[in-house]
Amino acid sequence: MRIVFSIGDIHGIGPEIILKSVLALPSGKDTCVVAGSFKALEFYRDRLDLPVELRQIGGADAIATIAPEPGVLHVLSVAEPDTVEPGTLSKTAGEIAMRSLETAATLCRDGVCDALVTAPLHKEAIALAGYRNTGHTDFLADFFGVSSQIMLFVDPVSGLKVALATIHEALAKVPELVRSMDLDGFFTTLAGSMQRDFRLESPKIAVLGLNPHASDGGVMGNEETTIIQPAIERLARSMQIEGPFPADGFFGAKRYLDYDLIVAMYHDQGLLPFKVLAFDTGINVTLGLPIVRTSPDHGTGFDKAGKGTASERSFLEATRLAATIARNRTQTTE
Amino acid sequence: MRIVFSIGDIHGIGPEIILKSVLALPSGKDTCVVAGSFKALEFYRDRLDLPVELRQIGGADAIATIAPEPGVLHVLSVAEPDTVEPGTLSKTAGEIAMRSLETAATLCRDGVCDALVTAPLHKEAIALAGYRNTGHTDFLADFFGVSSQIMLFVDPVSGLKVALATIHEALAKVPELVRSMDLDGFFTTLAGSMQRDFRLESPKIAVLGLNPHASDGGVMGNEETTIIQPAIERLARSMQIEGPFPADGFFGAKRYLDYDLIVAMYHDQGLLPFKVLAFDTGINVTLGLPIVRTSPDHGTGFDKAGKGTASERSFLEATRLAATIARNRTQTTE
Repeated sequence: MRIVFSIGDIHGIGPEIILKSVLALPSGKDTCVVAGSFKALEFYRDRLDLPVELRQIGGADAIATIAPEPGVLHVLSVAEPDTVEPGTLSKTAGEIAMRSLETAATLCRDGVCDALVTAPLHKEAIALAGYRNTGHTDFLADFFGVSSQIMLFVDPVSGLKVALATIHEALAKVPELVRSMDLDGFFTTLAGSMQRDFRLESPKIAVLGLNPHASDGGVMGNEETTIIQPAIERLARSMQIEGPFPADGFFGAKRYLDYDLIVAMYHDQGLLPFKVLAFDTGINVTLGLPIVRTSPDHGTGFDKAGKGTASERSFLEATRLAATIARNRTQTTE
Repeated sequence: MRIVFSIGDIHGIGPEIILKSVLALPSGKDTCVVAGSFKALEFYRDRLDLPVELRQIGGADAIATIAPEPGVLHVLSVAEPDTVEPGTLSKTAGEIAMRSLETAATLCRDGVCDALVTAPLHKEAIALAGYRNTGHTDFLADFFGVSSQIMLFVDPVSGLKVALATIHEALAKVPELVRSMDLDGFFTTLAGSMQRDFRLESPKIAVLGLNPHASDGGVMGNEETTIIQPAIERLARSMQIEGPFPADGFFGAKRYLDYDLIVAMYHDQGLLPFKVLAFDTGINVTLGLPIVRTSPDHGTGFDKAGKGTASERSFLEATRLAATIARNRTQTTE
């Protein structure tokens, strides 16, 4: 597979974790390409003494002919900064981050690369560079013309997978969003991803209730009885889907171990247990795009940038999973 | 100290965990009294071969003269069933549970006992017995004429303490409830409990945001910037209180280890991480009552009743903590 990395903010830990991941990947299997700044990568490689061979690529056309080689990172330069200053907010870094993302997305859209792994970007740097969309999600929605993406959180160590029905929404808006969303379509998309991306022939899905105690039969809220339960009952005829479960007891009693996927109704309901159980190894998969995209479950880490102490764990796992999903989608075997 | 137990539903695991707790308590320190059914306790004691000496008390007056003795449980009979049938829903069991609760609350109110530990009751059994209030919280609110109680969850193993700003409320109501509540008074009550009940002279309190990422500065909801942050700033002049923190990152990064108390804005936000971190040992303390009350963090366990397999861990810890808080409140030393 050909994996392309977007470099993220070059003043954060992105370049460092990309370089470390290249060194940690199994040899000879996948080609690693980064759209970004050659100078920034060289800066961190030399400063942190990471023995990665950086090879500049002339253009997208050249990528198709590259054979996988261990310890080699192919760099498609999208722009170069005057200086690299770890830990500082900069317009140039924001500009490079967005150009990198656009180039990497284009390479996947055009079939030149098979999967995209995005290093973290800094929203303020992006705003300084004059972009209206300051996050990956917004940019990719516009770029691919998709209206809804699903965030799936995966812990590669335990296998725990958590999907969110609503993501970055004010809590006050969540109940109405759940009431008005197409839950049948959402659950069906998730089941399809489990089959296609994770090769789970008959995935077992658990759905959490929106309200405390999943409303105790309608005593606190009624979204379970009127919306969630009926959707589960309709779908349960054709797939393995159960719930809605009281969220706290479900996780407390470790019932998540019995399911391939847990669906949470909102951000903190899914990410509180996920981060407690999987911090440091959690990764993110974006569903609903025409391409494979994964990302590490952390930010730019400006405080750690340039020090060599950043952990590549999450980014490395995101890269491995991106390659696995790309293989699974093309039905090739490893 | 004199600890009184309400027996809960006699067809659940209540009598068993009370008997097991009496055997596990340190000898000679506290007197254990249960308001309930002598017959039910005898039934489980004999069936499960638990060497507890049951002594019937004639009336409340006798309690003041009882000296602590290891392995002895004093029983104030409130009503007796015709038969004891573990695992079955019954009107009589509901009736006994409520009479037991009322008697135990009265003993604490009148200063005969120093703390109340409530065994789980079954809401349907209570309803069968014709009671309007079917839970501990409602009953105690009416009995003591208090309008607001605070649920505090304590893990005696790790020391983790989590308080909830709202409890059993539909998620759709939570934002408005948080906006309209007296947060200053709530935080002040909690700080007072930390000092008085847990002897933490200068407790360190962390407050979680209501919205994902604590709203990212007002991007998703504004309760943090308009309500929660100002309350924290006002109080921070006179106590150690910080936040609002993004809930998922706070727990994921184990920041809870740096604080004596974590305040969650709603049920699942507090109980998801609490139950993942403290399942099986978590206990509940009710603040805002004129008496000391604790309870185990589980239900009646009808499926386990009468089998001898129920764990007394949570009930035992609830009893120990009730005695500690009662001592701390009276400023006596152990």
